[in-house]
Amino acid sequence: MTKIKATNITWHEGHVGREERETLLKQKGAVIWTTGLSGSGKSTIAYTLEHALVQRGHLSYVLDGDNIRHGLNKNLGFSAEDREENIRRLGEVGKLFVDAGIITITAFISPYSKDRDIAREAVGTDSFFEIFCDTPLDVCEERDPKGLYKKARAGEIKGFTGIDDPYEAPSNPEMVIDTSKVSPQDAAVLLCEMLEKAGKIPQLAD
Amino acid sequence: MTKIKATNITWHEGHVGREERETLLKQKGAVIWTTGLSGSGKSTIAYTLEHALVQRGHLSYVLDGDNIRHGLNKNLGFSAEDREENIRRLGEVGKLFVDAGIITITAFISPYSKDRDIAREAVGTDSFFEIFCDTPLDVCEERDPKGLYKKARAGEIKGFTGIDDPYEAPSNPEMVIDTSKVSPQDAAVLLCEMLEKAGKIPQLAD
Repeated sequence: MTKIKATNITWHEGHVGREERETLLKQKGAVIWTTGLSGSGKSTIAYTLEHALVQRGHLSYVLDGDNIRHGLNKNLGFSAEDREENIRRLGEVGKLFVDAGIITITAFISPYSKDRDIAREAVGTDSFFEIFCDTPLDVCEERDPKGLYKKARAGEIKGFTGIDDPYEAPSNPEMVIDTSKVSPQDAAVLLCEMLEKAGKIPQLAD
Repeated sequence: MTKIKATNITWHEGHVGREERETLLKQKGAVIWTTGLSGSGKSTIAYTLEHALVQRGHLSYVLDGDNIRHGLNKNLGFSAEDREENIRRLGEVGKLFVDAGIITITAFISPYSKDRDIAREAVGTDSFFEIFCDTPLDVCEERDPKGLYKKARAGEIKGFTGIDDPYEAPSNPEMVIDTSKVSPQDAAVLLCEMLEKAGKIPQLAD
């Protein structure tokens, strides 16, 4: 855990409350936290869900390597310490997005249970949905969308999750999806239903 | 296996674009970056503007020293290096919020021109509005809302902006507000007009 270095600070009264923004948006803030091996389908599910939600009139936003690793976390690498700080910052940004009322979808391998739990705690468990993309390693490796497994097997990349760095599977995720069996579209439908049941978005009229 | 309820959804494999979210929200993303001494009125203006925008039906969110320093930046202190990283991260979060379509208001002293320029570059200058709260030091010190000037004058706090650490005034801000002369409500009206003129929010019907 990170210690609070900054002193001289107090919480201000005066913010617009989260509920007021959620009323405006006709939705409740949430974080859909996808986790799984490289190639397990996290980004594809994230983008598909984002589009589905926006088409239903909901404000949704994907945080992934494209917009986080090149921006907020560009001063972090892939050491265990930096991975931890990467996920810590992501959880804190998720907390801000949820407070703003947004349905936020994250697409990071996030291999360590402890780090995911820290993110859950930051966001608040009622608003945090851990989605385990439990796609078999051999399928992920055959997909190899970025050619990284090939490099890891050849020893050109060290510390690659699933090859020579551990992936800790979630013990109690809100949903498990094996994308070798479930299409991104079906996954998005399942996730929308999950959000409906949790009261984060209204049900579609029949 | 799943009944597809949302029949009119088209599926995509990529981020939803900023413009699609802006159309949904009927506004354009922006960062209103207030800067000025402690006690210069940044937070008061930020909250007043946030409430005004939400009452007009716009999604707005304040990032301030308190909710950021307790979360994302709780591992940063007040050294020059940490202040720089504090503002860098804030600029990057502002960039994400703007991409999500939100009118984001930041309330940080942000004393160094270079750091504010980095934030402007991250966000994009068309979406960045630097608001200089140019309230005289003696007024700020008399207000002393957190009792910090008193402590700084007594030598209990070192490196306090305006006392023994420099404040670099913006050379070309989008707006200058002296809150010893302009009320928070009038400031919010001026800022709404600025956002209307910039095409970030629609004008109110007469």
